[in-house]
Amino acid sequence: MRCEIIAVGTELLMGQTTNTNARDIARELSSLGVGVYYQAVVGDNEERLADVFRQALSRADLIILTGGLGPTEDDITRETVARVLELPLEKNKAWEEKLEKFFARFKRPMVAMNLRQTMVPQGGRLFHNDRGTAPGIYLEREGKLIILLPGPPREMLPMFKEQVIPLLREKLRDQGNLGVLQSKVLRVFGLGESAMAEMIQPLLENQDNPTLAPLAKGAEVHLRITAHSSTPEEAEELIERKAEEVRAILGDYIYGEDEEDLEYAVAKLLWEKGKTLALAESCSGGLLSHRLTNIPDSSKYFLAGLVTYSNEAKINILGVNPELIASLGAVSNEVAREMASGVRRVCHADIGLGITGIAGPGGETPGKPVGLTYIALESDRFQFSNRYEFWGDRQDVKQRATQTALNLLRLYLLGKLKAK
Amino acid sequence: MRCEIIAVGTELLMGQTTNTNARDIARELSSLGVGVYYQAVVGDNEERLADVFRQALSRADLIILTGGLGPTEDDITRETVARVLELPLEKNKAWEEKLEKFFARFKRPMVAMNLRQTMVPQGGRLFHNDRGTAPGIYLEREGKLIILLPGPPREMLPMFKEQVIPLLREKLRDQGNLGVLQSKVLRVFGLGESAMAEMIQPLLENQDNPTLAPLAKGAEVHLRITAHSSTPEEAEELIERKAEEVRAILGDYIYGEDEEDLEYAVAKLLWEKGKTLALAESCSGGLLSHRLTNIPDSSKYFLAGLVTYSNEAKINILGVNPELIASLGAVSNEVAREMASGVRRVCHADIGLGITGIAGPGGETPGKPVGLTYIALESDRFQFSNRYEFWGDRQDVKQRATQTALNLLRLYLLGKLKAK
Repeated sequence: MRCEIIAVGTELLMGQTTNTNARDIARELSSLGVGVYYQAVVGDNEERLADVFRQALSRADLIILTGGLGPTEDDITRETVARVLELPLEKNKAWEEKLEKFFARFKRPMVAMNLRQTMVPQGGRLFHNDRGTAPGIYLEREGKLIILLPGPPREMLPMFKEQVIPLLREKLRDQGNLGVLQSKVLRVFGLGESAMAEMIQPLLENQDNPTLAPLAKGAEVHLRITAHSSTPEEAEELIERKAEEVRAILGDYIYGEDEEDLEYAVAKLLWEKGKTLALAESCSGGLLSHRLTNIPDSSKYFLAGLVTYSNEAKINILGVNPELIASLGAVSNEVAREMASGVRRVCHADIGLGITGIAGPGGETPGKPVGLTYIALESDRFQFSNRYEFWGDRQDVKQRATQTALNLLRLYLLGKLKAK
Repeated sequence: MRCEIIAVGTELLMGQTTNTNARDIARELSSLGVGVYYQAVVGDNEERLADVFRQALSRADLIILTGGLGPTEDDITRETVARVLELPLEKNKAWEEKLEKFFARFKRPMVAMNLRQTMVPQGGRLFHNDRGTAPGIYLEREGKLIILLPGPPREMLPMFKEQVIPLLREKLRDQGNLGVLQSKVLRVFGLGESAMAEMIQPLLENQDNPTLAPLAKGAEVHLRITAHSSTPEEAEELIERKAEEVRAILGDYIYGEDEEDLEYAVAKLLWEKGKTLALAESCSGGLLSHRLTNIPDSSKYFLAGLVTYSNEAKINILGVNPELIASLGAVSNEVAREMASGVRRVCHADIGLGITGIAGPGGETPGKPVGLTYIALESDRFQFSNRYEFWGDRQDVKQRATQTALNLLRLYLLGKLKAK
């Protein structure tokens, strides 16, 4: 199956938005064994879109268009595709009702313009969209598959993964073309990309099927294992055998797989061990609380996250000794320890964690550079604290501080963190 | 001048790399007044690249190719362009000497393969590359400009800005076409895309120069105003005049421009008015603190953000009345008000804000659906609270709750929020 991806939008053409949709779709398709032969970007211009779409029809079996399904006049994908295929647009009653309910529920006016989003080229099936008002549209025409998806990535990508991929999988199976290309990602924290590559060098050198691909991702490294086979079971087995070899070398540097991020790993351990957690954040500004509360049901173990930004808040709410702040500064090992211990006491939590540092760009003092951060963890008869220097801008420092704190929590819950 | 950008590379086509080059080039060109009409991505395949390049030659005046200039066999851009233009490849002596020096300096062997990078289609001029081994190449052919640039963004982008842009500027001046394309984004919150479009319908209908383009972005809407002119000053004036017409209609729905997000708007107002802020978050889980502390120097007005997730934390830390929680539930207007007032008192802040709700997917009870959220704001002799229903998944609810809270803060600081 030969695929072509067309992204529609003047904001893409002018470089105001990055075309992450084409990248994400291509990545997903490659795991199905579908080859993308061309990608194109066109603006909100009917003639040019029609030309590009006609050309794609002439050479591809699967054409995926993203964007241009909004309610306004410059959203032209639906109309242009219908015109090129010589199909009339018909109102989809079910989607109209859905939109009416949606607008009523959120007390927003439904204007005439929104009705454009209920129009579907004749014979089109819908992909449901519960994150926006535009449905996706699926058409078949002379053996070619045509798929229209909304432009916003947070609507497009879940729709693609949850509805388009299963449909394509079915089509490929019907055509007898469903080879299996499967992959698993091992997520690594605490090693740089080259350090990790050096450790698994023998495996990287002799790869064939499965293949191994390391990829630096922000503060962590992902190792993708990809196997090709005729059945999912066989591919799975090939991957699992290779993953075992990797695990034997990297051990606890691997914290999770695929979509499991570090907050998920910590949440799972807290849940399994029946421990409660309270945080005292300063430089990380609430990001650690935010990340942990992104996990559903986090209220089961997450009691509170107190972002005590000012010194007064540290003193009044956490009971940090003001003399310590005066003599050593708020960014110090001792204050981090008092924050961890204070928040644990105030919230009656099993585990207390404190973070204090300098996120920058201002705030540097002699001996205390931007990025300097202390993290402390306290539980019953256990204390740990350490000094870190994180690099990058304000958001990088926040991200790396929380990543490190999450990894400390993980190691503690695994019984692998030494008191300090 | 009509431009077309062609990015060459199988890694782009498969989604392993994001095509930031096309975005960055398009952005730079638009400030020169050069319109990009199409972007394309092709893999390392001679036939398909030749087809795409031929098509671009047939419809564009300026064709920019990125990637495929490396030393290995799969780098085919140089050869393919030469073949389509029927130009022989000639060795460039100066570049050969440069490469020899380069390899000697870094004590790396110069292999035969590297000589491919010294080959240039007849008549081609070079763009110097001091960050890599491939030069950029410039060709003119029947009035069309053809530019080949290396793929790695850290080589491509400086070369483009420092060498290609001045050259294009010169060409445009020679043609008397040196125009300016400038744009400004007005950021709108509190209106859906279609509701906003209806309000400014007369402006959308009669647009020419500047043009207006609405775009939904998460919980907000962006309206891009783009003007074409011969001088930056004139473009700026055209934009400003149009922006005034839009402002006259949308008023306070517009909260910022270009890169200024809602947290920035609130931070600026807090700073200007000299007010301090303390937050009590529940369902938003620290996201509001995180967003506000992303702004440098937020410690000047942001005192604390207490993520009181458990009922005990709400009672013990904020002083919320436990009987209220027992009778009305933690997700209630009254508890939101006590959170706002409690955090204000505990932190001695000018403004206290409380958020309590159900982020989902669990936690729904009769009459209290997922997404239900109460937000309260208290200051000296001022109280506001309101009920909201946000839609989407857990992260959407958190995002929309914080977006709404930021907008309430903004309106309050502007003196536009009515007590309630």
